[in-house]
Amino acid sequence: MNAMSDLHEMARQAREAFFDLSVAPPEKRNEVLARLSGLLQERREDIFEANRKDVSLAEKEGLAAPLLSRLKFREEKLSQVCLGLTALSALPDPIGRTTLSTEITEGLSLYRVVCPIGVIGVIFESRPDALIQIASLAIKSGNAVLLKGGREALNTNRVLGDCVRGALSASGLPEDGAQLLESREEVASMLKEDTLIDLIIPRGSNAFVRYIMDNSRIPVLGHADGLCHVYVDEFADPDMAVRLAVDSKTQNVSVCNAAETLLIHEKAAAAMLPPIVEALKAKGVEIRGDAEACRLTGCAPATDEDWKTEYLDYVISVKVVPSLDAAVRHINHFGSHHTDLIITENEANASEFLSRVDSAGVYWNVSTRFADGFVYGFGAEVGIATGKIHARGPMGLEGLTTYKYKLIGSGQTMAEMKSGQRTYTHRPLHSACPL
Amino acid sequence: MNAMSDLHEMARQAREAFFDLSVAPPEKRNEVLARLSGLLQERREDIFEANRKDVSLAEKEGLAAPLLSRLKFREEKLSQVCLGLTALSALPDPIGRTTLSTEITEGLSLYRVVCPIGVIGVIFESRPDALIQIASLAIKSGNAVLLKGGREALNTNRVLGDCVRGALSASGLPEDGAQLLESREEVASMLKEDTLIDLIIPRGSNAFVRYIMDNSRIPVLGHADGLCHVYVDEFADPDMAVRLAVDSKTQNVSVCNAAETLLIHEKAAAAMLPPIVEALKAKGVEIRGDAEACRLTGCAPATDEDWKTEYLDYVISVKVVPSLDAAVRHINHFGSHHTDLIITENEANASEFLSRVDSAGVYWNVSTRFADGFVYGFGAEVGIATGKIHARGPMGLEGLTTYKYKLIGSGQTMAEMKSGQRTYTHRPLHSACPL
Repeated sequence: MNAMSDLHEMARQAREAFFDLSVAPPEKRNEVLARLSGLLQERREDIFEANRKDVSLAEKEGLAAPLLSRLKFREEKLSQVCLGLTALSALPDPIGRTTLSTEITEGLSLYRVVCPIGVIGVIFESRPDALIQIASLAIKSGNAVLLKGGREALNTNRVLGDCVRGALSASGLPEDGAQLLESREEVASMLKEDTLIDLIIPRGSNAFVRYIMDNSRIPVLGHADGLCHVYVDEFADPDMAVRLAVDSKTQNVSVCNAAETLLIHEKAAAAMLPPIVEALKAKGVEIRGDAEACRLTGCAPATDEDWKTEYLDYVISVKVVPSLDAAVRHINHFGSHHTDLIITENEANASEFLSRVDSAGVYWNVSTRFADGFVYGFGAEVGIATGKIHARGPMGLEGLTTYKYKLIGSGQTMAEMKSGQRTYTHRPLHSACPL
Repeated sequence: MNAMSDLHEMARQAREAFFDLSVAPPEKRNEVLARLSGLLQERREDIFEANRKDVSLAEKEGLAAPLLSRLKFREEKLSQVCLGLTALSALPDPIGRTTLSTEITEGLSLYRVVCPIGVIGVIFESRPDALIQIASLAIKSGNAVLLKGGREALNTNRVLGDCVRGALSASGLPEDGAQLLESREEVASMLKEDTLIDLIIPRGSNAFVRYIMDNSRIPVLGHADGLCHVYVDEFADPDMAVRLAVDSKTQNVSVCNAAETLLIHEKAAAAMLPPIVEALKAKGVEIRGDAEACRLTGCAPATDEDWKTEYLDYVISVKVVPSLDAAVRHINHFGSHHTDLIITENEANASEFLSRVDSAGVYWNVSTRFADGFVYGFGAEVGIATGKIHARGPMGLEGLTTYKYKLIGSGQTMAEMKSGQRTYTHRPLHSACPL
C-alpha cells in the first residue's frame, strides 16, 4: 500500500474512533489520562532508551544545542508530563455545555450544545512532550487525532504513541483515536482527506503553515509568525519600561511571544530610550534603530526589512513614533496579530491601544512572554492561533470544540408557521439541553 | 488599473474602514441601520427602476421563473428589508462582551473580549435583499464587507450599495466599510488578499465553494450541500411521520434544508412507509427506494448515486434500515452535516440520534425546514455553515465575531514567574473587562 491509501484508511479509522470518543462520558475520557500517566511511568525505561537513540542520532547529525535540549526526554520531562495529565484531568469537561436555549414556538426548543470537532491533524516540532500534551487535549475534548512529530524524535514518539493507544484501549475506547504519522508523504496525503479530517493544526515556520494552507481544503488553524511589539507610551513609568522591554525581549529570545520591535513615543524617547537600550545591550541585544533612535542612542540603523523581521534572536528594532496613533498603525501594518504591549500609566491611552490593536493578545503593563496556554490557565495548548477564525491566541481545550444545534419539537411543520397557525415566540429558556 | 490592483486598493480601504467601524459605539452602528432604512425608502423609485431593468434583461436571457421571482425587488421586499433593519437594530450588541476573566497572578488580570473579525468577503446569489441583510449584519457587528452579488442583479445592487455607503458616511463612518465587487476577475483577485481579508463566505453550489477553498489561503466558511435526512424510528408516531416527511420534503423543495433521503426502521416500514409514500406522491414527489422500500410501496429502485444526491426537486430516496445505529451510520457517511431529523416517541433513541449524528442541526420531531437564521432568532443570516470550524449552522451576528485577550498588569515579568518570586493564582474573576 502507498502512503495515500494507508493514510486514507488511517483517517477512516480515526473517524470511526471519533464517533465513539465523542459520546464517551467525561469520566471515561479522564480515565484515559490517568491510565496514560500510569503507562508512561511503567514504560519509563523504554521511553528513555528510545530517546537516547534519538538524541545520539541527532548529535551525530549535528543538531543545534537548543534543539537537542528540547529533544531530550528524561526523568524531569516525564514528571512534568505526568503532572500535566493530572492537571488536565482536573479541568472541567469542555463538552456538553448548553450555550444557547430558545423557545422557537410553543413546544419547540432550540439548544446549542458544545461538542468535539472530529478528526484533527496536528503537525508539531521535535519535542516529544508535545505529543502527550496534544493527544491528551484531544482525548479530554472527545476528538480523534492524527499526530506527526519531528523526524528527530521518531523513536521516542513511537513509544509515547504506543502508551497513548494503550491507555485508550485499556479504558475500552478505540486505540485508533490517536495515530502516528511518520513521513512527509503521509502528511501530504492527510491534506487531501477533507471529507474525513476536520481541522489541521500545523506548528512550525510561516512558510510551512502557508504550504499547508495552499495544499488543503481542510480548515487550518495556523500558528505562523510571532512579531510582537513593545510600545513605550509618553506616560510610561520609566523603570517599568526598562523591566518589561528587557523581559519581553530577552527572557527567552527563541519563542514566538518574545518582542521583536520596540516603539517609543517621541516625548518619552530622550529620557527613556537610552536606559532601555543600555539595559538591552547589557543582556547582549543588538539594537537597530530609525534615524531618531540612532541619534539618541548611537545604535546601528534599521532597514525597512527590520520592521517585518521575527529575529528569534538577540536583536531588536527600535522606532520613535510621534503618537499613540502612529504606534497602533505601525503594529497593525507590520505586526503578526500575535501579542502586543503598551507600557503607560494613562488608562485612556491603554484603553485605546487595547481596542485598536488588531492582535490576539493586547497587553497593558505586562511582558509579552505571558502569551501561553499554561499561563492563561488552559492547562496546556495545542498551539497559538494567529488567525481570527474559530480560535485566537493560545488554544487549549475550548479551541478543540465546536457546537451543534439540537432542536426538540412535537411535530411542528414549516407549513404551520407560514400559514400563521403557529407563531414564533423566540423566548430565552435559560436551561440546559435535556438530552 | 487592472482588477488585481483595483481590488488590492479596495481591500486596503476596507481594512482602514474596519479599524474605525470596530471601535464605533453600538449606538453609532445602529444609527447606520436606521439611516439605511430611511435611504432605501427615499430612493425607492431608483431601486425599483434599476430592478425593472435587471428583471427585463433577465427575462430576455430566459432566466427560470423561480430565479426571476427571487430577483424581483418591489414594494413588498422593500418593506421586509426595512422591517429586518429595525429588528436587527433592536438585537443586543454582539461585540464587547467579556467571555472569560481570570486573575493570572496578583495584580494581573486576563480578559477575553468579543470583537469583530475584520474584513469579510461575501459572494452571494441573485437576490438583491441578500445584499442589505449581509451588509447590515456586518455593520451591526463592526466588520467591513466586500460584497459580490449575482450578475443578474447588478443594477439593483448598485443602487442598494449606494444606500449602504450613504448610510455609513451620513453616520460619520467610512463608506468604504461596504464595497461592491462587480466581476469574476475581482473575486479571483479578492481570494489572493490574505493579509487584508480575514474571512470569505461563499454562498452557492458545492463546486463553487470548493473552487474558493482551492484558490485561497483566506479561511472560508462555506455553505455547501444540504443533504438532509428524515429518519422514521421504530417508535415514531405514524401521523407525525407523515406530516414531518411531507413538510421536510415538499414545503419548499429548492432550499438547502429540504429533505432528500428518508430512512425508516424495518419494524416500522410495513405499517408506516406506505402512507408516507402515498402522501409524498400526492404532493407530486417521485420515490426512489432500496429493495425493501420497492417491495413495500412499488416505487422505482434507487441507485448508489441517489444516497449522495441533493435533488432540490420533487424527488426523494427511501431506505429501510435494520436499526437506529444503521440510520446514524448512513447519515454520517452520506450526509452533508447540515440538518437531520429523527421522528420517534422514544426519548432514549432521540438522545442517541442527537448525540451521534455529526451534523450542525440534529432535530427531534420537527421539520428540517426550521434550519434558518431567522427561525433560530438570529434576526437574519449571512449563510448556513456546513463545516465545523468557527461557526456551524445558520450564521448570524455571533458568527461574524471573534475575540481578543486583554491582559492588564502592573509590571509583571516572566523572569519573576520563573524564579518563583510570583506564583500563578488562576482565580476566576467573574467580571467584565474594565477597558
